[in-house]
Amino acid sequence: MPRYKLTLEYDGAGFVGWQRQSNGPSVQEAVEHGFFRFCSEPVSVFAAGRTDAGVHALGQVAHVDLHRPVAPRTVRDAVNFHLKPANVVILAAEQVSNDFHARFSARARLYRYRIINRPARPALDRERGWWLPKPLCVETMTDAARLLEGNHDFSTFRASICQAKSPVKTLDRLCVEQRGDEVLVEARARSFLHHQVRNMVGSLAWVGSGRWSCDDVAAALAARDRSRGGPTAPAHGLFLARVEY
Amino acid sequence: MPRYKLTLEYDGAGFVGWQRQSNGPSVQEAVEHGFFRFCSEPVSVFAAGRTDAGVHALGQVAHVDLHRPVAPRTVRDAVNFHLKPANVVILAAEQVSNDFHARFSARARLYRYRIINRPARPALDRERGWWLPKPLCVETMTDAARLLEGNHDFSTFRASICQAKSPVKTLDRLCVEQRGDEVLVEARARSFLHHQVRNMVGSLAWVGSGRWSCDDVAAALAARDRSRGGPTAPAHGLFLARVEY
Repeated sequence: MPRYKLTLEYDGAGFVGWQRQSNGPSVQEAVEHGFFRFCSEPVSVFAAGRTDAGVHALGQVAHVDLHRPVAPRTVRDAVNFHLKPANVVILAAEQVSNDFHARFSARARLYRYRIINRPARPALDRERGWWLPKPLCVETMTDAARLLEGNHDFSTFRASICQAKSPVKTLDRLCVEQRGDEVLVEARARSFLHHQVRNMVGSLAWVGSGRWSCDDVAAALAARDRSRGGPTAPAHGLFLARVEY
Repeated sequence: MPRYKLTLEYDGAGFVGWQRQSNGPSVQEAVEHGFFRFCSEPVSVFAAGRTDAGVHALGQVAHVDLHRPVAPRTVRDAVNFHLKPANVVILAAEQVSNDFHARFSARARLYRYRIINRPARPALDRERGWWLPKPLCVETMTDAARLLEGNHDFSTFRASICQAKSPVKTLDRLCVEQRGDEVLVEARARSFLHHQVRNMVGSLAWVGSGRWSCDDVAAALAARDRSRGGPTAPAHGLFLARVEY
């Protein structure tokens, strides 16, 4: 059976997250349904990362095995046709070898978190960023972010429902950038714990607002205790930007 | 009466345009209503440009006279509070002299038009750009845009309902830029005719797709006849980005 790598964009707003769940529409269900309408046979779609409810994707990656070979462009265009009106599309499809696995072959995941940092609430990008009206100090946030880079026990930034075997992860990059009235946080790692990015961003926001110092972040990390961390930043500011193989 | 300059952001989707109309909610009505709830007196708000139904603003400018002096920050924050849940906000308010007029004092208006140019329809920015699936040649579009810069009779790009006295305008800048899978068109002029930007973008899209050559654009401009121009690009790709004084 030929295997296809899919690059997906979706709006997290209308979904309960990537994974199929009983409580509402999932991205996985929408994509599998699109394939079913295209090839009239049930298929399973495996993603690089299970994004949570409300989290967007600019470049989620998934793979699917089809029962017969189809030109990748046809997969993309035909399934996109059948995906309507769900807010998910296949940006690119390519045939890959059968040892490619969207989740297990991934070398790095790159997430972007967008904070809209200005007195006025957003009128345009309401569902595409976390609005924080008080000015954030990006310099201090950058210093705090550096403390989190590297190999650590990230229990402080791990959701209680996280199913990962170990809380130890290597955070390759965590950087904070001011762009106009936005503050963008970029996080790159081979893999993340459940809610790790949103929990780190919540703590960075406390640093940026002056509520926490860099020392507080270091102490929180060392505590390995979720109750010592900052808040969980809302889902609608988070974008799965890219998966690297 | 103290006069205030307001910088506004709004989502064009829910409005019939800037100007009050009987057929639906206008941005002007929403802002005037927000001021009424703030100061309990009716005020008139004058904008730099009357954006059409569906056109967004990142930096529309308007002015308003209040019956008593109020700190500009208070104007911004209090009126923003009363503007909810309409998708319009005051980004900045400042007190200005009484000879400032949002419309007549403006030296330049800057519009941005966003084309999403890729095979897959947009899942995230559905209402924030014109989706053209076939690849556009930005180089040829740039050459064509240059032909439109300068002082011309723009009748070919003027809506039939346009109320301007003269079809002659000076287009300071019209540039086309590729950014990832987006093509951005930026237009700058002291003032524009009704639908001028969207009509120019429609013709540039014909050039980019190969349907028209640069010569066709030159001939269309010279014809001074709307029926000789390309299509009108949809409103939801257009942003009033900035007004200069």
